[in-house]
Amino acid sequence: MSLLIVGTVAFDKIETPFGKTEKILGGAGTYIGIASSYFADKMNVISVIGEDFPEKYRTILKDHKMNLDGVQEVIGGKTFFWEGKYHKDMNSRDTLTTELNVLADFHPVVPESYQDCEFLMLGNLDPRVQSKVLSQLNTRPKLVVMDTMDFWMDIAWDALMDTIRKVDVLTINDEEARQMSGEYSLVKAARKILTFGPKYLIIKKGEHGALLFDKQSHCYFAPAMPLEAVFDPTGAGDTFAGGFVGYLAKTKDLSFDNMKRAIIYGSALASLTVEKFGTDQIAYLSQDTLNQRVESFRDLVEVDFQLLD
Amino acid sequence: MSLLIVGTVAFDKIETPFGKTEKILGGAGTYIGIASSYFADKMNVISVIGEDFPEKYRTILKDHKMNLDGVQEVIGGKTFFWEGKYHKDMNSRDTLTTELNVLADFHPVVPESYQDCEFLMLGNLDPRVQSKVLSQLNTRPKLVVMDTMDFWMDIAWDALMDTIRKVDVLTINDEEARQMSGEYSLVKAARKILTFGPKYLIIKKGEHGALLFDKQSHCYFAPAMPLEAVFDPTGAGDTFAGGFVGYLAKTKDLSFDNMKRAIIYGSALASLTVEKFGTDQIAYLSQDTLNQRVESFRDLVEVDFQLLD
Repeated sequence: MSLLIVGTVAFDKIETPFGKTEKILGGAGTYIGIASSYFADKMNVISVIGEDFPEKYRTILKDHKMNLDGVQEVIGGKTFFWEGKYHKDMNSRDTLTTELNVLADFHPVVPESYQDCEFLMLGNLDPRVQSKVLSQLNTRPKLVVMDTMDFWMDIAWDALMDTIRKVDVLTINDEEARQMSGEYSLVKAARKILTFGPKYLIIKKGEHGALLFDKQSHCYFAPAMPLEAVFDPTGAGDTFAGGFVGYLAKTKDLSFDNMKRAIIYGSALASLTVEKFGTDQIAYLSQDTLNQRVESFRDLVEVDFQLLD
Repeated sequence: MSLLIVGTVAFDKIETPFGKTEKILGGAGTYIGIASSYFADKMNVISVIGEDFPEKYRTILKDHKMNLDGVQEVIGGKTFFWEGKYHKDMNSRDTLTTELNVLADFHPVVPESYQDCEFLMLGNLDPRVQSKVLSQLNTRPKLVVMDTMDFWMDIAWDALMDTIRKVDVLTINDEEARQMSGEYSLVKAARKILTFGPKYLIIKKGEHGALLFDKQSHCYFAPAMPLEAVFDPTGAGDTFAGGFVGYLAKTKDLSFDNMKRAIIYGSALASLTVEKFGTDQIAYLSQDTLNQRVESFRDLVEVDFQLLD
């Protein structure tokens, strides 16, 4: 069994109303990998970094059971860099800098040792890169989860549709679901998007939680944890995806009911990520802290249901 | 036992992207009363109407077990009238007309026959009017639920605080909770508002659900039902409140756990209200339709929780 993660490993520079960082460790692959490490035994990672990627960040990834054999280091190249500033309400942000650097010419290569992949998490990336990974696997994984964003709808619609067609679970946010489907109602949007290929759709609503839909019109809703303070939302969606796929990889149960639980674990981890800058909180989490947060989620959603006569 | 409802009985004229109405039956008291009629045996209503209020609307209220002895009819007066137009996303609206009419000089009088009140629902009204009802009751009800809105914060803050101090459950929306507390985080907002007097706070988030807080930092979240189409959001919050207090009046259990169930029934009813104009859907609902919607809510939120080792 292995979980294969495809996603950026990057530098982020973040400003929020609470402070700002220098260049710190970021990237979808990083957050997904760290989050899933609380469940999965081993994660194989496919990504690309520059020569400027420091040993200390490599160590953080390795400390979280990430196998970096599939992470290409481009000699003389610079690591993908994103700089952003969050607005006061933390729900919107301005991108100040995007330097693709080594990501601009990334051709993923799946190492032979990764061919045992049972669970594949395609983090947000050019859909052509996501497809290239999938096509290099000799055996189709049991579960393929794909994250994407509006940017790819704008510039690579056909390639995006081609990739979406091949996956089991698609995760996007509410505005993206509306854009992708042309429907305002998320119920109608989900129904339409599920005709594009995926068996399951997760619509992420940020501080308003997440919805899981299947093709049989089942719908599950998990809230986001109401928090005292959101310190830095960066990586919340990727952490959610990592917790989700990591939980499924550990429990090996792909039923709708187990996906509900996976969403709660993903949400719990995401709610921890946003309490500190970058990976500061999520990278060194005790099992107790995680379990306490999951228990808080249980308290938040659990209701003893009784139908009236 | 009786449930006493204080709230407007009004005319609404509504325009949404799906159509528009003439003057139809509206008002907080109307929606609260209709919603609670699915649970409570009898509701005593305190309100005010003009001579223009038609018999057919009286019949609708009476058909829903509402006792109108406490509804003053002002001879020569005109009933409160509100006209509004919803924007395309249905989350915001413009008020085109507000004619207070008989509401402008409303002095509520509690009839002697209403003194058996055990449950009191104070619909959104001038907080001085809300207080006047409470002060006329010889025995304090077991439960006092109060709804309010930002308008009263703007023009009658002191009176509002004076009324809030006396109630058990306060319901407001998320923006109002932020305004009332000066806190952006709803967790911090709730903690602060609960120091103003109420034992419980319900923060209504519209299409994003509702949060219930108590003074011991318990927090419960109920989603709103994801719908194919929201046809007319008018009265959703009042329907929610009516379902909530009606369920509690029927079950007579004021525990936090039962309030969770009450919120789900309120949410189920609110999700039905918005599917048609005005009271069209909620006024003539079969028990089967309501139960089916509650079951859909159960499917939406129910998760079989298991903590990992």
